[in-house]
Amino acid sequence: MPNSYTQSDSVDNSNAKTRICLLGSTGSIGAQTVEVVRHLSDRFRIVCLSAGSDLDALIAQAAALPEPPLLLSIARASLTASAPQSSIPLLSGEGGMVELATHPDVDMVVVATTGHAGFAPTLAALEAGKEVALANKEALVMAGEIVTRLAQRKGIRIRPIDSEHSAIWQCLVGEPESEEHNKERGASGAWNCIEKLVLTASGGPFRLWDRESTDRATPQQALNHPTWTMGAKVTVDSATLMNKGLEVIEAHWLFGVPFDDIEVVAHPESIIHSMVRFVDGSAKAQLGVPDMRVPIQYALTHPQRYPNPDMPRADWAALGALHFEPVDMQRFRCLPLAFQAGRLGGTYPTALAAADEVAVPRFLAGDIRFGDIPGIIEEVLDKHASVALSSPDIAEIKWADDWARQTAGQLADAIGSK
Amino acid sequence: MPNSYTQSDSVDNSNAKTRICLLGSTGSIGAQTVEVVRHLSDRFRIVCLSAGSDLDALIAQAAALPEPPLLLSIARASLTASAPQSSIPLLSGEGGMVELATHPDVDMVVVATTGHAGFAPTLAALEAGKEVALANKEALVMAGEIVTRLAQRKGIRIRPIDSEHSAIWQCLVGEPESEEHNKERGASGAWNCIEKLVLTASGGPFRLWDRESTDRATPQQALNHPTWTMGAKVTVDSATLMNKGLEVIEAHWLFGVPFDDIEVVAHPESIIHSMVRFVDGSAKAQLGVPDMRVPIQYALTHPQRYPNPDMPRADWAALGALHFEPVDMQRFRCLPLAFQAGRLGGTYPTALAAADEVAVPRFLAGDIRFGDIPGIIEEVLDKHASVALSSPDIAEIKWADDWARQTAGQLADAIGSK
Repeated sequence: MPNSYTQSDSVDNSNAKTRICLLGSTGSIGAQTVEVVRHLSDRFRIVCLSAGSDLDALIAQAAALPEPPLLLSIARASLTASAPQSSIPLLSGEGGMVELATHPDVDMVVVATTGHAGFAPTLAALEAGKEVALANKEALVMAGEIVTRLAQRKGIRIRPIDSEHSAIWQCLVGEPESEEHNKERGASGAWNCIEKLVLTASGGPFRLWDRESTDRATPQQALNHPTWTMGAKVTVDSATLMNKGLEVIEAHWLFGVPFDDIEVVAHPESIIHSMVRFVDGSAKAQLGVPDMRVPIQYALTHPQRYPNPDMPRADWAALGALHFEPVDMQRFRCLPLAFQAGRLGGTYPTALAAADEVAVPRFLAGDIRFGDIPGIIEEVLDKHASVALSSPDIAEIKWADDWARQTAGQLADAIGSK
Repeated sequence: MPNSYTQSDSVDNSNAKTRICLLGSTGSIGAQTVEVVRHLSDRFRIVCLSAGSDLDALIAQAAALPEPPLLLSIARASLTASAPQSSIPLLSGEGGMVELATHPDVDMVVVATTGHAGFAPTLAALEAGKEVALANKEALVMAGEIVTRLAQRKGIRIRPIDSEHSAIWQCLVGEPESEEHNKERGASGAWNCIEKLVLTASGGPFRLWDRESTDRATPQQALNHPTWTMGAKVTVDSATLMNKGLEVIEAHWLFGVPFDDIEVVAHPESIIHSMVRFVDGSAKAQLGVPDMRVPIQYALTHPQRYPNPDMPRADWAALGALHFEPVDMQRFRCLPLAFQAGRLGGTYPTALAAADEVAVPRFLAGDIRFGDIPGIIEEVLDKHASVALSSPDIAEIKWADDWARQTAGQLADAIGSK
């Protein structure tokens, strides 16, 4: 197994184990990645682990690995003082994550952090020529152009972990690409055969509610997702459909598809994880019982598929019906706002995501109503017009992020004080 | 464009047009192939055409081509006498089809004939190293082992035209294969990643009928297929589900999948054309509005996809629901009989297909009831036990075919005379 890759699809060319650096190991995706790797332990080995603030869980994960890891890192630097004595070095902060992600004994970096903590290590891993499996939304939403251009320059295909993007990626395997198209689109992929991407959305818990009730939904109601079990922020984002909006922006960058050619369809059963329609009128879908371990495993093993009897299997004959319906864009305004921010480009998607990252916890804290979330985001986007930057660098993205958080916070304060 | 291929996937390596020999040009698939090629006339050209007995239609097709064909052939030799004077040679019979299929200026042979008229030209085309796009069921049902072993030896991948097999093939593009697996399975494909093939069936016009009414269905009722417009034989086969049974046997040979790993699911909307479940629990489906031009075009252009705005596009948001349910194996006995014949192998699938080819016209002629079709086939399979051959050659297949036709005819006579 080489220390670095200059080409994608090369993970399985040797009998040595692929060495994984897992960033965000104690979150939902991180923990499921540990589980998947345990099952594939003859082919994969976790050599670096990093977590945000749960030091005990991180140390427990490290201790449970079949072979001790080389390095650990915890985001909150103050916690290193309370760590027990160990022969495994414990690093901290962004620098720690970058050191793990670029370690010469790492082949693949799984970025399962949330927020823009994933930025620096993702870019560093790509720069170091590592394979990158990406569960972090912000890297592509806020820095899509930077990340995809760097990946393209390094000849690395980003391996999406989100179920929708994994679905599209699986549908695109082996489908025709063009060099020319690649240059033109500047995306991670260059499939000139794509006519439309159809992202499916469960529709969330308020799919059948009326506008008034939706706007007044409680945090408890918003956290009750019908098909997926996830963290609180992403669960609320699923209820507002902002999660789908962020996925649309990610899909734009991952697959080089213009926003006009990306469609969102409500599909309450969440069995079809997404679809690709091709220029010849044919379409393909990836499907199965919702279980994040399936896209996680595929991100690791692509282009191979390894047997995993633990994964759930759909019983088609017993399935009954799969339903499809349009998304109510009036009631779920976060989705059209995401399309709008994506089309405007530059720092707009950063402002969108940052405003949402402020609005959602304020909703969960009871400061604002569910229906205020899109209102705050829309106002942030409106105000952003006077300061927006095109083709921003990382510093400018961070500035726009700060600006949008501050602006969203003020807007939430104003609502809360009413 | 080379005159012959030793490798699949090589059709699009040059700017010259792919030269097509179309066998069975005046049938439903043949006529749609002409239409698809007309649309793709910058990349494909029909150079040879053959028909069964409709000489006028054949001559009209030849005259309508943008460039005159090199050769024509009509199955019924007596018709050549009545052909108008022309500079394009008109051949006849099986020899004529073989000459067209092996012509040095042919790159790809589209076999759209029905019955075992397709046998000899299919084998000759493969032997001559041509790409072969196969709509003919009998070649794989009756001579699956011979056809797939020859294709494998020549390094040619058979291009399926049936919508179900095209769906599976499209889902398998780019998925991992193994040389070892290929040798072991001896199939056209060698995808060791397949866990299960799920063939969808519309369920035909009698899906919701009771047993008694199904058995007494009239030819008119059987010819009224809910989703596909096809010839009379295949429409009745869709009503009995024998068509799905023959497709199961084809899928076994095309994709090297044991019968235990092939499942049939009723899906009345015919939007999902078939699915593949992989060893890692993921699954893929190919889908779209039913239109045979889509799989025909894909068979020609694979692995490329060329824009075709004429093809219908599904509107997912407006689709409503897709339904799935088990097939009633008690009421549609032709399907379990096909699985049985497939598992028994040797000349059993020949006996199955031949018995059906006799029984269906006798039903259409009013000699037997709809419910008698599986009865005759079952009895033919039972009687076949005493004469069945394993790994038959073409002569033995033809013998078994004759034997089964004669036996089925006698059984139909006995029923008719009651």
